Amino acid sequence: MRLAGVIGHPIAHSLSPVIMNAAIAATSLDWVFVAFDVAEGDGPRAIDAVRTLGLVGLSVTMPHKEAVITALDGLTTDAEVLGAVNCVFRDGASLVGDNTDGPGLIRSLAEHEDLDVAGRRCAVLGAGAAARSVIRALASHGAAEVCVVNRGAARAESAALLAGRVGRVGRPTDVSSMDLVINATPVGMAGVASGGSPLDVELIGAHHVLVDLVYHPIQTPFLLAGAQRGARCIGGVGMLVGQACLAFERWSGCPAPASAMTAAVTAELAARSRA
Amino acid sequence: MRLAGVIGHPIAHSLSPVIMNAAIAATSLDWVFVAFDVAEGDGPRAIDAVRTLGLVGLSVTMPHKEAVITALDGLTTDAEVLGAVNCVFRDGASLVGDNTDGPGLIRSLAEHEDLDVAGRRCAVLGAGAAARSVIRALASHGAAEVCVVNRGAARAESAALLAGRVGRVGRPTDVSSMDLVINATPVGMAGVASGGSPLDVELIGAHHVLVDLVYHPIQTPFLLAGAQRGARCIGGVGMLVGQACLAFERWSGCPAPASAMTAAVTAELAARSRA
Repeated sequence: MRLAGVIGHPIAHSLSPVIMNAAIAATSLDWVFVAFDVAEGDGPRAIDAVRTLGLVGLSVTMPHKEAVITALDGLTTDAEVLGAVNCVFRDGASLVGDNTDGPGLIRSLAEHEDLDVAGRRCAVLGAGAAARSVIRALASHGAAEVCVVNRGAARAESAALLAGRVGRVGRPTDVSSMDLVINATPVGMAGVASGGSPLDVELIGAHHVLVDLVYHPIQTPFLLAGAQRGARCIGGVGMLVGQACLAFERWSGCPAPASAMTAAVTAELAARSRA
Repeated sequence: MRLAGVIGHPIAHSLSPVIMNAAIAATSLDWVFVAFDVAEGDGPRAIDAVRTLGLVGLSVTMPHKEAVITALDGLTTDAEVLGAVNCVFRDGASLVGDNTDGPGLIRSLAEHEDLDVAGRRCAVLGAGAAARSVIRALASHGAAEVCVVNRGAARAESAALLAGRVGRVGRPTDVSSMDLVINATPVGMAGVASGGSPLDVELIGAHHVLVDLVYHPIQTPFLLAGAQRGARCIGGVGMLVGQACLAFERWSGCPAPASAMTAAVTAELAARSRA
C-alpha cells in the first residue's frame, strides 16, 4: 500500500481525504490518503518527510503553500509565477510543486458546465491565493478581460498583473458589464463572520454566469441572490474537485474518476450541513 | 484518519501491515498502517518524518533498528540495554524507542502456550538482534539458565552478558540438557541458502520444547525434525504477533486483538506458501 496525503493547519475539516480516497477506491489503486496536521513553520520538514517515506504525492494547504517552496526540487511555471504550491508530485527522484487551483476551475467549467472562458469578460472578486491562481488561469485560457475587484488596492494591482495584458483592477460597478463573475473571497463561507454576498446584488443580472469558490454551504448567499436575479450559478465543488483531479493525475498517471470524487464530496457536504 | 507504519529496507514482504491493519480493523480505530521503504542511512530522517507528520506510532526493522536511536527523545530500558529499537511510541511530545521482540515472545508463550519460562533452562541459537532481545527477556522473566549457542564466540559472549548471572556461552551438545531451545538464527527461513536445521537433530529429544522464531515457512525443518523426535514445537508466528501486540498497545492504549492478528498473519502466510 502506498501513501499520499495533505498537509495543513488546521486540517481536521479538510475534504481532501474524502475526495482522494473516493478517487483511490474508484481506480482500485492500493493507496491511502491521509490528512496531516503540520504546524506552521514545519512545511519544509514535511517535504523532507515525503521524500524520506516515499509518499506518492502531497496536497498542500494553508499555511504551507508558500513555505514549502524552498524544500522542493522544482516548480511548474504556474507554481513559480504564483509563488504558491497546492500539489507536490514526483518527477523521477525530484519533488516538484504545482498549483492546480486555477487550472482545476477551468477544467471543471469546461468538462462539467460546457463553459469555455476564451473570449469572456471576467471579474474576479478577491486577490488572495485562490484568486491569483484563477486570474492567471483565466488569462492563460484566453479570457478577453480579467478585472480584479478587491478592497486592498496594492494586492489587486499585483494580482491583476498575473493576467498580463488582459488584466486590470476594477470596481464593483464594473461587474455589470462582465460575462463571468467569480467569488474568490471567503465571504459567504460557513463560519465566516462577514456573511452575505461579496457584491451588491443589484449589480447582478440575468446575463451573468456566477461562480462561487466557496463550497460550504453549497448554496451561498451570493449564488442564491444571483439565481433570484436570473443569473446562471455555479458552486465551489467544481474547482475543489477539478484541482483534486489534476493532482490525482499528476500522482497516478491515471485519468481521475471525477464523478466518483464529486459524489463523495457532495455527500460529505450534505452530511455536514445536516450535522 | 491517523497513520502508523513500519520502516525498513527491503520492506515489500513485511507482514507488519497485515498484522497491524487486522488489529486496527478489529478495534475500529480510524487508523491505517503503511509500510515505508526507507533507504539505509535515512532512519533518523524517518524519525523526524514521524514527528512532523504526527504518526501515532512506528515499527522499525532492518537496517534501521540501531540507527534510529540518535533521533529519538528517549529509550525504554530494554531498548537502551539492547542498543536496538523495533517500536517507536509517543509519550506526550516525546518519541520513545522500545524493543518488544523478546517481551513479545514471553507474552506469546504465556498467553497462547501456557508456558512460563521462569525456572527453565533455555538455549538460544544465534546472537543477532532477535536473539539478544530474547536472551534479555528470558533472564528478566526468571529463566534458570540462558545458554547462548553461536558460531562467533565474541558475539556469543556479548549476547550472554545480557542474561546477567544466568547467562553463559554454550556448545550445541549442551542443548541436550536444556528444557527450552529457541532458534533465533535465520536458518530454515524460506529463501535462506543454508537450509535445514540450525542444530544436529540427534541432539533433540522428547523432553524439549522447541521454539523457532522463523515463521516462513510455518513448519520449519527444525520444528519438523523436533516433532519427529517427540519434542513440543512452537512456530515463529507467536513472537511476530506478540511483539506487534505490545507495539499496538503502546500506540493505542487499547488491548491488542491478538486472535484477529494471528488469524490475519496465518492466512497471509498460507497464501504466500501456495503462491
